[in-house]
Amino acid sequence: MLIVMQTHASGDDIAEVCRRIESLGLKAHPMPGATRTAIGITGNIDAIDARSFEALSGVRELVRVTKPYKLASREMHADDTVVPVAGTRIGPGTFTVIAGPCSVENESMAMEIAEFLRERGVRLFRGGVFKPRTSPYAFQGLEDEGLRILERVRERTGVGIVTEVMEPDQVERVEQASDILQIGTRNMQNFPLLKRVGKAQRPVLLKRGMSATLEEWLMAAEYVLAGGNKQVILCERGIRTFADHTRNTLDLSVIPPAKQFSHLPILVDPSHGTGKRAYVHPMALAGLAAGADGLIVEIHPKPETAMSDGAQTLTLEQFDVLLTDLRRLAEALGRTVV
Amino acid sequence: MLIVMQTHASGDDIAEVCRRIESLGLKAHPMPGATRTAIGITGNIDAIDARSFEALSGVRELVRVTKPYKLASREMHADDTVVPVAGTRIGPGTFTVIAGPCSVENESMAMEIAEFLRERGVRLFRGGVFKPRTSPYAFQGLEDEGLRILERVRERTGVGIVTEVMEPDQVERVEQASDILQIGTRNMQNFPLLKRVGKAQRPVLLKRGMSATLEEWLMAAEYVLAGGNKQVILCERGIRTFADHTRNTLDLSVIPPAKQFSHLPILVDPSHGTGKRAYVHPMALAGLAAGADGLIVEIHPKPETAMSDGAQTLTLEQFDVLLTDLRRLAEALGRTVV
Amino acid sequence: MLIVMQTHASGDDIAEVCRRIESLGLKAHPMPGATRTAIGITGNIDAIDARSFEALSGVRELVRVTKPYKLASREMHADDTVVPVAGTRIGPGTFTVIAGPCSVENESMAMEIAEFLRERGVRLFRGGVFKPRTSPYAFQGLEDEGLRILERVRERTGVGIVTEVMEPDQVERVEQASDILQIGTRNMQNFPLLKRVGKAQRPVLLKRGMSATLEEWLMAAEYVLAGGNKQVILCERGIRTFADHTRNTLDLSVIPPAKQFSHLPILVDPSHGTGKRAYVHPMALAGLAAGADGLIVEIHPKPETAMSDGAQTLTLEQFDVLLTDLRRLAEALGRTVV
Amino acid sequence: MLIVMQTHASGDDIAEVCRRIESLGLKAHPMPGATRTAIGITGNIDAIDARSFEALSGVRELVRVTKPYKLASREMHADDTVVPVAGTRIGPGTFTVIAGPCSVENESMAMEIAEFLRERGVRLFRGGVFKPRTSPYAFQGLEDEGLRILERVRERTGVGIVTEVMEPDQVERVEQASDILQIGTRNMQNFPLLKRVGKAQRPVLLKRGMSATLEEWLMAAEYVLAGGNKQVILCERGIRTFADHTRNTLDLSVIPPAKQFSHLPILVDPSHGTGKRAYVHPMALAGLAAGADGLIVEIHPKPETAMSDGAQTLTLEQFDVLLTDLRRLAEALGRTVV
Repeated sequence: MLIVMQTHASGDDIAEVCRRIESLGLKAHPMPGATRTAIGITGNIDAIDARSFEALSGVRELVRVTKPYKLASREMHADDTVVPVAGTRIGPGTFTVIAGPCSVENESMAMEIAEFLRERGVRLFRGGVFKPRTSPYAFQGLEDEGLRILERVRERTGVGIVTEVMEPDQVERVEQASDILQIGTRNMQNFPLLKRVGKAQRPVLLKRGMSATLEEWLMAAEYVLAGGNKQVILCERGIRTFADHTRNTLDLSVIPPAKQFSHLPILVDPSHGTGKRAYVHPMALAGLAAGADGLIVEIHPKPETAMSDGAQTLTLEQFDVLLTDLRRLAEALGRTVV
Repeated sequence: MLIVMQTHASGDDIAEVCRRIESLGLKAHPMPGATRTAIGITGNIDAIDARSFEALSGVRELVRVTKPYKLASREMHADDTVVPVAGTRIGPGTFTVIAGPCSVENESMAMEIAEFLRERGVRLFRGGVFKPRTSPYAFQGLEDEGLRILERVRERTGVGIVTEVMEPDQVERVEQASDILQIGTRNMQNFPLLKRVGKAQRPVLLKRGMSATLEEWLMAAEYVLAGGNKQVILCERGIRTFADHTRNTLDLSVIPPAKQFSHLPILVDPSHGTGKRAYVHPMALAGLAAGADGLIVEIHPKPETAMSDGAQTLTLEQFDVLLTDLRRLAEALGRTVV
Repeated sequence: MLIVMQTHASGDDIAEVCRRIESLGLKAHPMPGATRTAIGITGNIDAIDARSFEALSGVRELVRVTKPYKLASREMHADDTVVPVAGTRIGPGTFTVIAGPCSVENESMAMEIAEFLRERGVRLFRGGVFKPRTSPYAFQGLEDEGLRILERVRERTGVGIVTEVMEPDQVERVEQASDILQIGTRNMQNFPLLKRVGKAQRPVLLKRGMSATLEEWLMAAEYVLAGGNKQVILCERGIRTFADHTRNTLDLSVIPPAKQFSHLPILVDPSHGTGKRAYVHPMALAGLAAGADGLIVEIHPKPETAMSDGAQTLTLEQFDVLLTDLRRLAEALGRTVV
Repeated sequence: MLIVMQTHASGDDIAEVCRRIESLGLKAHPMPGATRTAIGITGNIDAIDARSFEALSGVRELVRVTKPYKLASREMHADDTVVPVAGTRIGPGTFTVIAGPCSVENESMAMEIAEFLRERGVRLFRGGVFKPRTSPYAFQGLEDEGLRILERVRERTGVGIVTEVMEPDQVERVEQASDILQIGTRNMQNFPLLKRVGKAQRPVLLKRGMSATLEEWLMAAEYVLAGGNKQVILCERGIRTFADHTRNTLDLSVIPPAKQFSHLPILVDPSHGTGKRAYVHPMALAGLAAGADGLIVEIHPKPETAMSDGAQTLTLEQFDVLLTDLRRLAEALGRTVV
């Protein structure tokens, strides 16, 4: 933390800021410069509400220096986290493919897709049963009936299940029916939900909030980690910008800094990230090349009849082509698609 | 809804799109142009997932025309909604001031601020007891103990209470202790929570999501209205942009279109909107001039010791000056500060 | 400037960074903390490309502290700049109104509007003759013929002329025909143009770039000031964000920090800022309440026939109502509309 | 173009809108719906300022349908444009690498880098001599002296030269010394400059504006194409968003739609796109995987001493590693690095 004083701050102003720093059990390092003084602070700054320094006389600006996340930080945990799930491992070295419909619509379509995935060696099936929808009048998912379908899909085909959980009360039921609990973009800062999945027995797939900075995202992961659940998987799914050629702006350039500052694995979601079927394939390949640890993608036997997100959903044939290209690319990069 | 065909779309492509439109019980209006055909759709388009048309052959683009909100729309409800609460009325004509600390820290400070407000004729006290904090290590609010303090504050001073509710399970308890339920920016699309407060007996203050469009915001209001609770108050609190001179970008220009497209009252929060105490006063005045129906502002007897948000909190003296200026300005605009 | 070292940076890394700082004639202030060391730098940091420190071993991050603008800074120039022009003064105390058509279309309409303004005591007429248009096929302005019209308008009615200049070669001609040179949003970082108007004899109205930070904007002003032209007027005209209810997002909250960090006057342009006629009136009032020193607004006798920007242009009758409201509001704020 | 009427628009309002459409030589297609009427327009809408319809009574909203670019559009020019330059061809099939220093600092460093590139088969050298700098006090480039250095570099090594041009008056001189004229992000809508390079004899590398939509970018290309210069190369270099982990947000997801809607080749600039050396390598690979036709990257023998942009510049060794990885990846994708 650094406090930058105004040019005309008095000696008394500076002394008062230093006194206040020391009174909080921290250490003040005044640095007089040509035009102004800056005051460095060392110590456990996270314990206090540092923005309140801005209210003191003669203070121009406050510059935060340390990152507030700890358990999510690579500095505290140098080795990459690898999440074992459904007979595979999500983390560096592999490139994990998760695929399935936006919504589970009925048992036969879920079963058909899961069988299709199993035949191709894809081990994780995604499918929503609790659906966060912008409109209260839109299809909200099959809910508990959907959970029972997911259980039967897992039992029959052996695929692992990834599905979204939307509120603390659902966690226990969803844990039963799934292998990975997904937290959606709109819930990235739903703190009661984060605390609850921090107590869960399943890995958590934490989608980035639509307008979350990397730091806020890692702080959301910190909530889960601080609860005791160490199996957090990040997932970039597009951010909100002025750009209108895609539904969201898929921020692949968050992958290298996420890897640099955190040890958590990170996936990419080109379906929501672009919102257009035609762009899913190239952006999936780009995600692999940028260093993502895997992919979550929407597929459907007949996207034009899908109950949600049909416009961004691949057909099974298109998914097959994508899988082939991913495997070729992964090989060139010394990695393995699983 | 309008479907724009590609320049080279065939007659068969066009016929197939029309067939599909009609098969959904809608009406197709093909419009051949010089370079391409567009196809208008009329009927109850909201019932279907229209984006799936993008998947049909020869379709270039889909242009949505009607707004999906109904109960929140001024077209369905021409008269302004006015929310009666705590002996005052939130809506056009008045300019309602809601003030108080970011967090309720203890009973004596809450009581001191509430007394101060009562003496000045301010009828609504804000104060958080369940606090959504970016860091799991930050102060999370007094929780149920805080609710009891709020009840005693209301009982002793007669002020109305505005406080945040973060999850469905808290709603019943918070309803007891408060007069307005606040939904924070991070929960604007927490749909289970919106559904729950749609069944509540208290007005709902719905803050705009950090990156929500006006349409998404009104759709969030629609969730509450569709649940049966007609008393929704919008609150602009700053959006996320590239600009870094304020903590968020207070989007006052959302007020006139919100008024145009919806009948709901709208407040402005210059404390979170700017994040800096020195900018709260001018932006509060600007909110009034832009047509807001009121203000929610953070005040504290000693902001530099506040447990949260001290940097954006006015002192009681600064609030007094603001109140005087608001009253003078309101008079010039033919309105009354309450 | 502050250099934040990695947690695991070695003593040698730290020493090397300090050596490099000192070798540039600057002073290093190492601050060892609990988990990492930060190194403050004092001295004339602006003379070097400081980002290169990021390339040194053990460096985690570089935090810039001082603002790079000098002549535009209030710390270097405590008193407000007031720009005398066309018999009025742009700066604190007054609220200057500039009005006129988007494009000068012909002499009679320009004359009609200028007469209208003169009768109401408005002293500055805006009108474009060199038009930056997104499409090469759109009307590009009357160019030199338009300049001659502006000269005759000024001669006949006595209004001061505000018009845009788009390239260095136009400056001399435009100076002849105008009282204020406008730099449009797309040219805020057209550095050759900024250098050229820095040598001009007219005040410069510098519109904020569509995605410019306050710092970049003040650095653009710095180019003009450094050229010797001290008469720079800032103008907020809306920034680009995800929000789609207005054409741009009018960032009124830039006004208080612009006033805090700089001595330059600042105007607001609610026509481009909102892009919709119905929102111009409330946002103009809000600009005044937020502390702007004036307003630039598009008006036209028959907006629906305007050759550009008709949708955001007020009729003369609407402008009259606005002027009345501005005067009433200004009075309540202790200011005078000129 | 579609005009959406208000729910309560009268028959007269609708008739008046239709009359006005027809009076402009266009055709009106009214579509009465359940709650409102929409009116389609066909004909040459680009010739008029369509936003003025918004000013008519009963009109709620205007929805533009056709894209305004023509020469840049794939619908008008189905085949990919391929730009032959310096013995290579920029366009599909190949992946063109352009590399060099941010600024040409002196002849020996320019020569060293050019030799290095030639030895590796890289045919295009980038290096700025007219530098757009945010600060007027920063190094502004070697200017004409730099052009002479570039000429000697080309003569001695045979590499093609890519360099930025900042104003119309420089174009003739820069054409002499270079093979590709670069238009920087800040000049994407410098229309006089675009018009001038539309008359130039060299291909134009058109960087995307920091906050430009795809449509605005293609309209800027349209200015060049309309001037007669058919050799335009697009270049994505990062957009401005709220995200702060990179200097800009590299929008790789613009590549597939740019390819879909336009026939122009598109490159990617991971140096400016990320602003951090460590992220350049993965984002360069991702650009190739996303379908870009090439890359422009900053390299320097000693980045930590570079006069500009050192923090985002690769060392020659790092570039060698990147080139190897690009070649391996390109092969897997059936493409060739040139």
